[in-house]
Parts: sequence; structure tokens; C-alpha cells
Amino acid sequence: MTAAQRDLGEAAFLADFAELSAIGATAAGGVHREAGTAADGRAREWLRSWFVAHGLRCLIDPVGNMYGCGEVVADAPYVLIGSHLDSQPTSGRFDGAYGVLAAAYAAARLQADPPEGARLNVAAVNWFNEEGSRFSPSLMGSGVFIGKFGADEILDTADLGGVTVREALQAIGFQGSDSAPTAAAFAEIHIEQGRTLIDEGLDIGVVNTNWTAYKYVVSVVGEQSHTGATHMRYRHDALVGASHVVLAVRAVADEFPDGTMLSSVGQMTVHPNSPVVVPSRVRLAADLRSLDAHLLEQAHQSLTTKLADIEAAGEVRVIVESAVLRPSKAYPEAGATLAGAVADELGLRWRTLPTMAGHDSVNLCGVVPTVMLFVPSVDGISHNEREFTTDAQMTAGVRMLTGTARRLLTGALEEAVVT
Amino acid sequence: MTAAQRDLGEAAFLADFAELSAIGATAAGGVHREAGTAADGRAREWLRSWFVAHGLRCLIDPVGNMYGCGEVVADAPYVLIGSHLDSQPTSGRFDGAYGVLAAAYAAARLQADPPEGARLNVAAVNWFNEEGSRFSPSLMGSGVFIGKFGADEILDTADLGGVTVREALQAIGFQGSDSAPTAAAFAEIHIEQGRTLIDEGLDIGVVNTNWTAYKYVVSVVGEQSHTGATHMRYRHDALVGASHVVLAVRAVADEFPDGTMLSSVGQMTVHPNSPVVVPSRVRLAADLRSLDAHLLEQAHQSLTTKLADIEAAGEVRVIVESAVLRPSKAYPEAGATLAGAVADELGLRWRTLPTMAGHDSVNLCGVVPTVMLFVPSVDGISHNEREFTTDAQMTAGVRMLTGTARRLLTGALEEAVVT
Repeated sequence: MTAAQRDLGEAAFLADFAELSAIGATAAGGVHREAGTAADGRAREWLRSWFVAHGLRCLIDPVGNMYGCGEVVADAPYVLIGSHLDSQPTSGRFDGAYGVLAAAYAAARLQADPPEGARLNVAAVNWFNEEGSRFSPSLMGSGVFIGKFGADEILDTADLGGVTVREALQAIGFQGSDSAPTAAAFAEIHIEQGRTLIDEGLDIGVVNTNWTAYKYVVSVVGEQSHTGATHMRYRHDALVGASHVVLAVRAVADEFPDGTMLSSVGQMTVHPNSPVVVPSRVRLAADLRSLDAHLLEQAHQSLTTKLADIEAAGEVRVIVESAVLRPSKAYPEAGATLAGAVADELGLRWRTLPTMAGHDSVNLCGVVPTVMLFVPSVDGISHNEREFTTDAQMTAGVRMLTGTARRLLTGALEEAVVT
Repeated sequence: MTAAQRDLGEAAFLADFAELSAIGATAAGGVHREAGTAADGRAREWLRSWFVAHGLRCLIDPVGNMYGCGEVVADAPYVLIGSHLDSQPTSGRFDGAYGVLAAAYAAARLQADPPEGARLNVAAVNWFNEEGSRFSPSLMGSGVFIGKFGADEILDTADLGGVTVREALQAIGFQGSDSAPTAAAFAEIHIEQGRTLIDEGLDIGVVNTNWTAYKYVVSVVGEQSHTGATHMRYRHDALVGASHVVLAVRAVADEFPDGTMLSSVGQMTVHPNSPVVVPSRVRLAADLRSLDAHLLEQAHQSLTTKLADIEAAGEVRVIVESAVLRPSKAYPEAGATLAGAVADELGLRWRTLPTMAGHDSVNLCGVVPTVMLFVPSVDGISHNEREFTTDAQMTAGVRMLTGTARRLLTGALEEAVVT
């Protein structure tokens, strides 16, 4: 059987998705497959085998991005399509992995059956460490691809246990030496991770912009002492200070109309973290997010004031180690128009909408013409083992991505404005 | 040179204390020598060599307690004297280790030069895991000695990384098979870890009772979700709930007159602890402490109400996994009288006082006649690398412990009431 004769139908897709979902699976139906772990390594080996078995040439670049390249036009640049195989801890099986497998199917279908007038090649991509849970920041692989980060800077980044990206990639055999293919356009399909499509009974979302975000790393510094022998008036308790910070971050979101502002502290490490020692230092990662850059700036000012107030109370120092703005970007209108036409042709119900979560496409958008597609998330649940998208919703999305990439291969967005 | 001719003077003590303090030393003058770690193992090897070099027979029991036995009267039970070599993380070099070395000197001095009318033997002891930072609960070795814990239950206890006490002790070669010596009395000397002696210009404290404590393990349970895609109205953020718990624990202490109540949360672990995931579960260790059992019970009721209120707010569940009362005990008056007479004889200024912190002597007290002694802590600083006691304060304490143990060897407290 040649690659072109391989079964690229919807039943095969669902069987492959089940096989991929079994790698790093949790008992509750999710996956635990953080970037650069052994489970990520096994998922990557599975994908490499799939690429090769389906006639896509597998390239791996120095930061672990994997490309399954289908050649249609000799020496032409590539329409990249894809997402990420890494997951959050104890998370859902759809986030990222669905988009990678959908892209693999689309790339193999298009190589086997290219559109008339194709001017570009196609490659499915698995970006390294989209999630940013083990290694921070998130969107690492696509960030190096677009030149936002240097490869060495990323390879030297360590997790909380001191293991670097370089060591982790080498341990799983995925620090490659291939050059990345040249991109002429990018398309990604992903679960929505929100309730818009499911609430409105739609099949497909076409992203027109992204929520903007401030991401903070904050250290709270007190003084280590004995919980059982230090009177309260002498305490400089970093965990008490950090608890005020967590509640201040929450309070900022509550100052804005419901649905317009998100805030959270997802990560916190306490030092020395002994039951009988007053904590000396707490480090935490916080974020504020809004669709409206103006509101976000107000929230940032409000948080800045609250953090200063916590320090002014005198118990602890509050040090904002970094405050990074992820700005809002407009996805090209021509891409949304193109995707809408594909959806109409396929009889899929669709709308445009912003993405609340960050995606690799946010990195690519503004560098090459980019299309970002959503399939529905049942109950909007995400970063949770109960994340769910139906088989019919998934296969409709594969048709949608294939149809979109088919048009991109003809150079349909070559004239699109890159914002 | 025989053991009896070894130098047991004060200069030798200070030189030995410096040598012991270099094991697991931190750059800031403290030690980092948690129970069962490699550094604890090296400190234990140093102590075993010291015991043997000074004619004390070294026994090691199944939970890693070390005894340096000096025989004075064949087949008689032992006056045990000692403390612990393990430390908190990045902590001071005096807490525990000072008392073990003082006891080793006292035991060697008394074996070489026993009191007239000696009826008991003497052994210096290093109790396993007094601190409870790596393996919880604290006071493990002395707890097994008095039968409060079973040895197997303790050996099966795991640290946050899943390593058990059994594995840790075997790894450093300190899971022994010796029977513990039979105790007829116990004496311990320790730094005060408070400011009473230093503020009043005294040399020695004689403990008459201990602060009572409630120790809690609390889990806060929410629901894992995406920080960037989950609207605030759908959040069940375990870290927001846990922050309310930390501040409630602090608020309880503030409800009582200054100096009468302590409260803290020293340890907190966040799951899954990713920057972009709303935390699903936080586990924390809290304590409330007071000299007054009645006030402590009021504080316990207040905290219980506050935790119920946090759960009633609806965002998270608050589960008190354990709430253990460490009751107050009176140390025998006869022991305080004996110690006071020794201090007067040595020209040391002393007073009775309660201990705020827990000590191995709290375990022994009530089982055998027990004397607990303090030397001053400069500025009252403890569980901190800046912990400090002067050479003169330390050597006065060694004289004091030696004099106290000398009287105990004659059976001076055999009639003491065990409360």
C-alpha cells in the first residue's frame, strides 16, 4: 500500500485520535503529557511514525518543533498547519492534540490529492511547549520559529526542578538539527475552551482577534522564623503577604463588568515550605486578561496599586519580577472570509469570535497570513480531564481545516495584509 | 590516650561545635540538614565517631535514634540526655545540634568522673526527626521511644516526594537494630528560640510547662480550568479559597491579646501548579498555639467557624483532614528545683518559663522524670540562619547540663511525680 492509498477517512481519524489519547492517559479520561516529559516523548514518536507511514517527511528543529512535510510543488514555501501535543498537568485530551492530528490528516490528504493550481507545499506541525506549565513562558516553539525568542535562551530555560529544555529534549530524543520549513501561511484548529459555539449551536468558530493579557511573576519576601516561638508582632510572613496578593488579583477582576476581565494566580511556590517555619519567600505567577486593551490597562493599574498597598502594610516586600503584556492582534479579515466560504461550502454553521486563550497562531499572526479555527467545547470546560468534543464535531473540524488548507495551497492569502 | 583522658573542656566543645556546624552548612552561617538527608547522615557519622572516640558505646534503634551509652553502674537503667541533629531547611546551627553535643560532653564527662553514689548510667541521645519539616509529624524518634507512634507506622511515612522514612534511613545507613536503652530520667538543653532570657539578662531557663497547640492539615478543593478561557462566574479556584484560609488563620491570632496566641500556615502545596490553570486542590499545614488551653480552645472554635464560612461562600470545599491537639504538660517541680539548685551552685542566673516550641522533652515528660533547660537566643531568632547563641552562653549550658545530669545519676528524681 502506498502512502496515498492509506485510509485518511473519518473512522481512521477517530481511531488514531483514540490511540494518541491513550499516551499519557489519566484514569479520568484526560492526559498528563507536559512538554519534554517521557509521555510527550512517546506522543512525539507516535506522530513521527504517523508522518512517515503517511508519506510526510519528518523534520525536527533545534527546539523540538516537529514538521510532517508534504511536497506538492518543488522548492515552494509551506502552508504550515498544526497545534501542539503537550498538555497541562491532569488535563484534557483534546487541547492541542486534536489540532495536530487534524493537521496531519489534512496534510496527508492534500499531498495525496493537491488542489488544482497549487503554488505551495503543506506541512503539519507540532509546536514545542505551547502550554508553558513545566517550562515557562508558554508558546515556546512557535516563539522561536517567529524569532520572538532565541533558541539558546529557550534551551537554557529550566523547570522548577532545575532541568533545562535542552536536557529534557535530549532525554526524549527530540532535539533535532533540521531547519524549519519556510512558512507562507499558517492555519490552526483547536477546541474553543469556551461556551460560545456550544451555546449558539454552531460547528465552527473563526477567530478574528485575541484577548490581550498581562502576565506577572511576583515574589513576596518576608523573614523565616519559628511558627511556634515567634510572636505575631515579629512576623514577616511571606505566605500571608502572598495570600493578600492572590485575593488582590481576584478583586481586580471583580471591579469590571462580568465577562470582560479574567484574573488568576495559577502557580505558587512557598519557601522553605515546612509546617513549623514561617515562610520567607513565595513566588507566584498571575495574569489579567481582557478583550479590551483599555480595560486591561485599567486593571493593570489597579493591581499595581493593590500590590503597593500590600507592601505598604509593612509585613512583607512585594516584588514584581516581570509584567509582560501580550497585546491583542487582529487576524486577517481575508482569512476569516476564506474560512467562512469553506464552512458555507461544507454546510457548517459558523461565526467569527475572539480567542480568550493564547495559541501558537497568536505568534504566527502578524508574521504570515494566519487562520485560526475552533470546534466546540462541551460545557466550555478546558484544562480539565472532563474536556470534551464529540466525534462529529471533531470530524467536521478536520474537513474544515482540510478545506481551508486546500485554498491556502493555491496562494489564496498571499495578498492578505499581515498586521 | 584513653577515653577518660580525652579533652572534654570548653575549648574542645567549641571546636567540636564548629566542626559539627560545618556539616550541611549554608553560606549565611546556618545549616540545611533535614532528617534522613545525606547531610543528616554525615552529621550522624560525625556523632557516632565522637561517641566511639570518647568511650561511649553507640546504639542505633530501628527508627534511627542514636544513643552514646556511658556505663557507670552495671545493668542499671539510663539517664538519657540529648536533643536532635536534624534541622529545618536553611535554618540555624544551634537548634537541636547544640543540645546533642552538650549531652555528648556531659555523658563523656560523667562516665569518666561519675558522681558519688551513682545509681544510674548515662547516655547521650540524638532523636530522629524532631523538626518534622521533611517527614511529618515532628518529634518522630522520641514519639516511637515513648510508644506514642508505632515504629512501622513511622517507617512507612513518606515525604512530599514519596520517599519513606525507612528508605531514607537505609540510604544513609542509620536504620539500626539495637534496642533502645531503658530510661530512668531525661534531660534536654536547647536554645530558647524566644527573647525571655536575653531580654532579662539571664543565663539559663528551666522549663515548667509547654505551650499547647492545635496542628491542622486542611485541603481546599476547587475545580481545574483554564485561567485564560474560564469566566470568573464559573471559577472554583482552590488557591483563592486557600488564601482565605491563610488569612483566617492569621485573623484568629489577632482576636487575642498580643503575646497570648500564635497562628501560622507554614506549608502549602498547590495542584496542578501551572501558570495557566486554575488550581484544583491546595493542601496546607496550619497551627494555633497558646500557653492557655482555654484560649486555644476558643481559637480552635473561631477557626472552625471561619473555615465553614469560607466553604459556605460557595467557591470551594474546605476539608479539615486532621486537627491534632498537643496538650500542655507540667514538667515536674522537683526537676525545676533540682535544676535551680545546680544553677545557683554554678553561679548562673536563671528563671522558670514555659516553652513555646515543641521539644522531644515534651514527649518524654509524663513518661519519665524530665528536666528541660534553655540557653539564650540572641534576639530570639530561630528557624533562621541568623539564629545565634554566644560561646559563653553555650559553655555555661554545658556546665549546667552536666551538673543536672550528675544529680540525676544519683537517682535524685526517682521519687518525682510523673504527670
